[in-house]
Amino acid sequence: MTDGALRILVTGGTIDKVHDPRVEALVFPRDGATLVPEMLAMGRCHFPLVQIVMLKDSLDFDDADREAIAAAAAAAPEAALVITHGTGTMGATARFLQGRVPGKTVVLTGAMRPHSISASDGSFNLGGAVVAAQVLPEGVYGVMNGRVIPAARLDKNVEAGRFDL
Amino acid sequence: MTDGALRILVTGGTIDKVHDPRVEALVFPRDGATLVPEMLAMGRCHFPLVQIVMLKDSLDFDDADREAIAAAAAAAPEAALVITHGTGTMGATARFLQGRVPGKTVVLTGAMRPHSISASDGSFNLGGAVVAAQVLPEGVYGVMNGRVIPAARLDKNVEAGRFDL
Amino acid sequence: MTDGALRILVTGGTIDKVHDPRVEALVFPRDGATLVPEMLAMGRCHFPLVQIVMLKDSLDFDDADREAIAAAAAAAPEAALVITHGTGTMGATARFLQGRVPGKTVVLTGAMRPHSISASDGSFNLGGAVVAAQVLPEGVYGVMNGRVIPAARLDKNVEAGRFDL
Amino acid sequence: MTDGALRILVTGGTIDKVHDPRVEALVFPRDGATLVPEMLAMGRCHFPLVQIVMLKDSLDFDDADREAIAAAAAAAPEAALVITHGTGTMGATARFLQGRVPGKTVVLTGAMRPHSISASDGSFNLGGAVVAAQVLPEGVYGVMNGRVIPAARLDKNVEAGRFDL
Repeated sequence: MTDGALRILVTGGTIDKVHDPRVEALVFPRDGATLVPEMLAMGRCHFPLVQIVMLKDSLDFDDADREAIAAAAAAAPEAALVITHGTGTMGATARFLQGRVPGKTVVLTGAMRPHSISASDGSFNLGGAVVAAQVLPEGVYGVMNGRVIPAARLDKNVEAGRFDL
Repeated sequence: MTDGALRILVTGGTIDKVHDPRVEALVFPRDGATLVPEMLAMGRCHFPLVQIVMLKDSLDFDDADREAIAAAAAAAPEAALVITHGTGTMGATARFLQGRVPGKTVVLTGAMRPHSISASDGSFNLGGAVVAAQVLPEGVYGVMNGRVIPAARLDKNVEAGRFDL
Repeated sequence: MTDGALRILVTGGTIDKVHDPRVEALVFPRDGATLVPEMLAMGRCHFPLVQIVMLKDSLDFDDADREAIAAAAAAAPEAALVITHGTGTMGATARFLQGRVPGKTVVLTGAMRPHSISASDGSFNLGGAVVAAQVLPEGVYGVMNGRVIPAARLDKNVEAGRFDL
Repeated sequence: MTDGALRILVTGGTIDKVHDPRVEALVFPRDGATLVPEMLAMGRCHFPLVQIVMLKDSLDFDDADREAIAAAAAAAPEAALVITHGTGTMGATARFLQGRVPGKTVVLTGAMRPHSISASDGSFNLGGAVVAAQVLPEGVYGVMNGRVIPAARLDKNVEAGRFDL
């Protein structure tokens, strides 16, 4: 693929949560920014474009949110897309996107633990998603915890605290 | 691929270095252990097998070391292999392995900054390598900093402090 | 003071919270353990004794909890005590302890951000409290964010996200 | 003490080292900056003034360096001073300063492990030093690993990897 020809669409989810000492809870950054550029810098990965679509908990997503994500994915000039997403309904969005983003490789990813706190799976997952978006054939996939999972079977293993095949 | 059918061969390199306050320098763990299992646990990636081949700086590798790596790769029952490796001669080892590990997908990876210190690219790279080993066709590749790089062109960009296409 | 003659009484609070991916929130460790020994090891501080009194949010403390803390402090054979405590009612507990722990130097501390997540103030505060407990005269103090604060004036500056003189 | 009336003199040492992937070693930041302000921000400690005197390994200090540190300490308008310093000759500098900084409380501190890498003792030590400088009587001390150590007895326990009483 051409240098730079990968776009990351940010939709929120645990991966982008930060600790807010006022409310003593994990929230999205007050300034509306995403941590994905910092994660890419840490991974010394300079070529993806990053676009914020929204910053939401995926448990709060409705079809209008998924339409917005599909529209952003369809409008992107790149054929390789990564979508950062909450883990709660990642599978539902993946299945929603199937057939709506023809001609592209779309890889959803996220984290069980925020990147902003130590020992997150975010970098491991994002590193896998960036690679997968470049080498997989057209379609919609999840890349989580070392696995490439087709949209049809993408669902969190709540007990194990990870995504499995 | 069958669950569990991915093996990680550890050879050392920056990814596995730790700080030793006695000598105030980065060294391999005194107990001969590797940090790769800890990295997998952080990535919530439970299925790879981890095998230590050696713990060496890749600048100190000679052909006997590369023969040992090739032998371990050829002997592995899995068709999907990740090799953690120093960045200094990762390309030389990749080219050495070409033709010596038929029928397997071999992905070399490592880090510009040790996993044991903050802001390492190790998890991002390992997450990419684990995915790549499962989806790429037979051959020898490097996966570093978001890129899948064929063995023939795998070399560190020393100025930029990363691997590029 | 004699080597080892400092006791840390753990009562919970933000300093000891960890992220639980199941509930996507900060909770106390499921195994009832405290992170204080890990913090001491990181600070290469080997001599304090650590005793768990309870693991609670200080906003949930009632007088029975404060009686239990006072009893543990009075029963401790050491004259130098550190108490880890939530920031929400640290001042109230400090004032409750005044007059109830004669002959001892009692220093309350905690964190605005959990030790288990990156960029916590926990180590800075604990390092200050351990020193203060050894050098201050008998009495009850808070040590937070670089300040030694008498019990009478110990209260969180919620707007600034820290404790001030 | 008056708000703000504490100055931190930075002289280098392990506490301020960062990893340089080009040379794969720990070095001082190329831009001549210090990490002490970042450490204070993490500790939510807003009041100290930070002044860089030099950024050197304390094993490379000679008497001219110690004269420069003594001059900076004597010239400081504050009566409470913290000096960040390498662990190798922290005791020698403390003893050099004795008698040269009358009327001030001078506390040397540093780290066995750089702040820039995870699991450093830097924040724990700095938090202790900032408190000690405000509450100890006039004199020269080291604060390391939870201990307040008089200049006369300040020396690294190389075997244990810490400072002891």
